[in-house]
Amino acid sequence: MALRFEQIVVDSENPKALADWWREALGWQLTYQSEEGEEAEYEIAPDADTHPSLLFLAVPEKKTVKNRLHLDFVPEGPEGGPDAQATEVARLEALGATRVDVGQTDVSWVVLADPEGNEFCVLRAR
Amino acid sequence: MALRFEQIVVDSENPKALADWWREALGWQLTYQSEEGEEAEYEIAPDADTHPSLLFLAVPEKKTVKNRLHLDFVPEGPEGGPDAQATEVARLEALGATRVDVGQTDVSWVVLADPEGNEFCVLRAR
Repeated sequence: MALRFEQIVVDSENPKALADWWREALGWQLTYQSEEGEEAEYEIAPDADTHPSLLFLAVPEKKTVKNRLHLDFVPEGPEGGPDAQATEVARLEALGATRVDVGQTDVSWVVLADPEGNEFCVLRAR
Repeated sequence: MALRFEQIVVDSENPKALADWWREALGWQLTYQSEEGEEAEYEIAPDADTHPSLLFLAVPEKKTVKNRLHLDFVPEGPEGGPDAQATEVARLEALGATRVDVGQTDVSWVVLADPEGNEFCVLRAR
């Protein structure tokens, strides 16, 4: 027996809007949605068979401190190359991501936050 | 161009110990380790080619609130069945996981915490 890594749950004030935002940011699909309400859930993934997915779950409380867990992404694809990181960061900023200072100094990655303030990083293309 | 989901970074007081704990819990491999020190990193994954991995990163601060992001796992394998969830939870508790109350009521999943208090869930086998 083993444990399959099923999903990363993201507590959210507005899970529908945040799932939509990440779906656009990553080019993923909406793979599940519950009824709306107090414990509404919206799941996105590259496709229905790929795990882990991201599951945005309604919670009453707001984010208060730097997240203890965060997600890192790497630009990839045929148009990669040295400008890929800057291109992706500009695209994410146009969607509404913001640059945040979590104490990083002169590092090779860019620290952004989604519309609810969840930190994530865009690494340099490899 | 696209963003590859590279890793989930887990801030940690003792990243080597925590990576070892999760490696055992999941049956994953250590796929990278930095030099030890202030920003030590330990990466685990099912194998070197599978992403996202889990990257445990040394930070000076302790966990203070319920994590805004958490991981969910599902028992799977030939010995699955109705007892699979209880079997996996017992195995994780024997490793040092603890049951935590984050306000869940009568739900189908079990909420545990790793040795640094990071919440995660074991869902019912499907």
